[in-house]
Amino acid sequence: MTRVASEQYRAKIKSAEDAARLIKNGMNIGFSGFTGSGYPKAVPQALAAQIKEAHDRGEQFQVGVFTGASTAPELDGALAAVDGIKIRMPYQSDPDMRGKINSGVSQYVDAHLSHSGPQVWAGHYGKLDLAVIELTAITEDGRGIPSSSVGNNVSWMAAADAIILEVNHWQSEGLEGMHDIWDGVALPPNRIPIPITSAGQRIGKTYYDLDFSKVIAVVESDSPDRNTPFKPLDDESRKIAGYYLDFLANEVKQGRLPENLLPLQSGVGNIANAVLSGLLEGPFENLTSYTEVIQDGMVDLIDAGKLVAASATAFSLSPDYATQMNDNAAEYAKTIILRQQDISNHPEPIRRLGVLACNGLIEADIYGNVNSTHIMGSRMQNGIGGSGDFTRNAHISAFVTPSTAKGGQISAIVPMVSHHDHTEHDVHVIITEQGLADIRGLAPIKRAKLIIDKCAHPDYREILHDYFDRSVATANSHHTPHILREAHDFHIRFLETGTMLP
Amino acid sequence: MTRVASEQYRAKIKSAEDAARLIKNGMNIGFSGFTGSGYPKAVPQALAAQIKEAHDRGEQFQVGVFTGASTAPELDGALAAVDGIKIRMPYQSDPDMRGKINSGVSQYVDAHLSHSGPQVWAGHYGKLDLAVIELTAITEDGRGIPSSSVGNNVSWMAAADAIILEVNHWQSEGLEGMHDIWDGVALPPNRIPIPITSAGQRIGKTYYDLDFSKVIAVVESDSPDRNTPFKPLDDESRKIAGYYLDFLANEVKQGRLPENLLPLQSGVGNIANAVLSGLLEGPFENLTSYTEVIQDGMVDLIDAGKLVAASATAFSLSPDYATQMNDNAAEYAKTIILRQQDISNHPEPIRRLGVLACNGLIEADIYGNVNSTHIMGSRMQNGIGGSGDFTRNAHISAFVTPSTAKGGQISAIVPMVSHHDHTEHDVHVIITEQGLADIRGLAPIKRAKLIIDKCAHPDYREILHDYFDRSVATANSHHTPHILREAHDFHIRFLETGTMLP
Repeated sequence: MTRVASEQYRAKIKSAEDAARLIKNGMNIGFSGFTGSGYPKAVPQALAAQIKEAHDRGEQFQVGVFTGASTAPELDGALAAVDGIKIRMPYQSDPDMRGKINSGVSQYVDAHLSHSGPQVWAGHYGKLDLAVIELTAITEDGRGIPSSSVGNNVSWMAAADAIILEVNHWQSEGLEGMHDIWDGVALPPNRIPIPITSAGQRIGKTYYDLDFSKVIAVVESDSPDRNTPFKPLDDESRKIAGYYLDFLANEVKQGRLPENLLPLQSGVGNIANAVLSGLLEGPFENLTSYTEVIQDGMVDLIDAGKLVAASATAFSLSPDYATQMNDNAAEYAKTIILRQQDISNHPEPIRRLGVLACNGLIEADIYGNVNSTHIMGSRMQNGIGGSGDFTRNAHISAFVTPSTAKGGQISAIVPMVSHHDHTEHDVHVIITEQGLADIRGLAPIKRAKLIIDKCAHPDYREILHDYFDRSVATANSHHTPHILREAHDFHIRFLETGTMLP
Repeated sequence: MTRVASEQYRAKIKSAEDAARLIKNGMNIGFSGFTGSGYPKAVPQALAAQIKEAHDRGEQFQVGVFTGASTAPELDGALAAVDGIKIRMPYQSDPDMRGKINSGVSQYVDAHLSHSGPQVWAGHYGKLDLAVIELTAITEDGRGIPSSSVGNNVSWMAAADAIILEVNHWQSEGLEGMHDIWDGVALPPNRIPIPITSAGQRIGKTYYDLDFSKVIAVVESDSPDRNTPFKPLDDESRKIAGYYLDFLANEVKQGRLPENLLPLQSGVGNIANAVLSGLLEGPFENLTSYTEVIQDGMVDLIDAGKLVAASATAFSLSPDYATQMNDNAAEYAKTIILRQQDISNHPEPIRRLGVLACNGLIEADIYGNVNSTHIMGSRMQNGIGGSGDFTRNAHISAFVTPSTAKGGQISAIVPMVSHHDHTEHDVHVIITEQGLADIRGLAPIKRAKLIIDKCAHPDYREILHDYFDRSVATANSHHTPHILREAHDFHIRFLETGTMLP
């Protein structure tokens, strides 16, 4: 049975190849897709094939690729592989895409996820020519039922001149009802308050109002989301999660947090999943979550009755959990809400709700600055994603990381980070498998001692203390003492010798 | 005539000396005061005298000093001079205070102004023992009429165990009615939407509800605010303002801004005043402002009928304008609203209204990162203040600076900033007297060329291009290419030779 119940939309059904032929060199395209879910699967691959043919004929063909966040091999991977991407924003995590960014083939604008849609809409990136949006279904009366992510879809469809809809039969029809699409979004001066006062509050509709006049093609597909398996929990992740949960328990004990905490946000990844797994065994009940993505651990918490409301913009599930979600989506829709990313990541609800943020990092420095994006100062890894949205506005903002990488050759704690994404003003707690540094209310020189002693790996503590002590002794101030000539020596050593150790 | 109309409050009147005697070593004190206005004048000086006496007796006596923002010699200056400040937050600009921070006598936590009050209230800094708040008057029924700033006063009075009120007869009684005190502020999970949808909208009361049971003293004073004169406008400031106003005019022309722009925010200082002065002669009408401070130039715009609503948390006026304000406060109260700083600087209204932010900087780098606080990486100047609140959430975020300082020995554009306050993700436009770089929607390597060519002083362009070109040629990526060994050479050269020039 077709998922395109509307007759007038059925009349616009085309093959992916025919739809892709509507795309021209130089166009800026807003694709759906967030952390490997809800991205169009057919049109981008057909487009990649046409770009390759054009390149083989010696013609120029590159497009601007704007998404919600990361996508998958069928979108980022396929288009990057044919050198088809001129400019990419706001986030990616695909190996091929990353390669093209770092080799200079593609320009990449690493943007806050909450800003990305509205800023494109406002014209910061020029004109948006096209939106390509995955749906679960189009109803008889022409409503668009979202699929496994909402992302920037509302902004893309509002801003774009034309729309291609890709209806994916793999997506569960049970998803209908899970989404919360708020039509209060606007450009200033027409914005109004976002009325959310609890993570589980619904404020909108369960579907997109589609603009029929803009829709130039409807494509049918049947392909699964990326659904990357999580690694099994390791001891390091468990330790880090343990420190964080102990910290939260103490905040409750001190009367600084309610017994059911405040809405939890967690970045994507194994440590985040370990935290969620720890919560499963922990004392907290009636938890809520106001975050970007629904991960495996959250599904377990819902099943256990511990997580009573989970707000996000997308799934980021392993294949088994994706199957479980697809089979029981209508049931999970009682607890899970998928919103636009300019609502899920908006400072307004994040600050109002008092979200407890917990995000990964690449490196932190002794004064509490955090690098989330760059390897050794120059090389882009993934992007800042939503970490800035949550970190800056959280009630408490924690960062988690193993204390070393590359078998101990890289220290996650360095004298000065080689790229800054979150500044000293925005970082409250840093946690490694070594321990937890609570740097709230501390001046930089107090933070330094705590971060080195609590978080750095023992192999690096002495050289960090040595840098700090000599900085205090020789810098032009005792506020944030640095020896600029040596501030990046850890990184330089790694680049030259393969280890940050002397 | 007394300004303390309430009989029960009159019974609590004490001398500043007697009130100060209630303050003990180690206390954390929330003082009123923002950009040199509305700070208590008598109690801090009496406290400083008592601290000096204690130190002369060999006793320990230091307190924590929390304010709205900067204060003046009578508060920061007096307490710093006697080594009386253990910890200082969230902002200062006093030479003595700065000296004690950089010499290590006082710890300083440089915090976002919007977060400062709520985070103290939430317990990030331990217990708040006392609030010392300047008022214009106490009414017969015990209401507190705010003075020339609101700042963190609501948070301090909510969080503190005890309150000392300082009623300053110098403040104009005409101020009554200008303030907008919203009692919707709370700690999560009890926060509600801030209902502001236009800069000029009033949402609260014109007075503080005082908690009589907490008030341990009422002190009367009669002293002017700091009221620093602005320097006369110079050619450089005029040029920078001109570029900014041309940019705004073009945004209107392109249909990206309404004809009356969006609410303006401007940092404190001479370039900001030049922008305001330029608006006086410019084509824009029905302007609004959603900012931190009311500066001289805004008063002129109000007088000219060009600025129809001005929202801030404090005055930052020159002595002449302060007199003019005091004489005509009731009239200006039709246009000016003074709010709590956790409302004036809150991401929620800033992002909703689409504020156009314009702030100064110490240095920017070729990739668009901004340092607002530190001299040569280590030495604290003033603090981040509200620049992060506005910059991160603005519709368009501009930074302004002369291209050089110290007679050309310091370049405001450097390969890598020596301290990061605003990251590449948050900076849209950089302006110097050389020109304007609109870096919206650009990848780092495109930004670099534009910033060097448009903003750097010609004396520094060649060495900046040289650094960039060699970074592209040798770094491990074309995304944000750096040569870490040389990234701070400008600063190192200045520290060693007194000039950034080779």
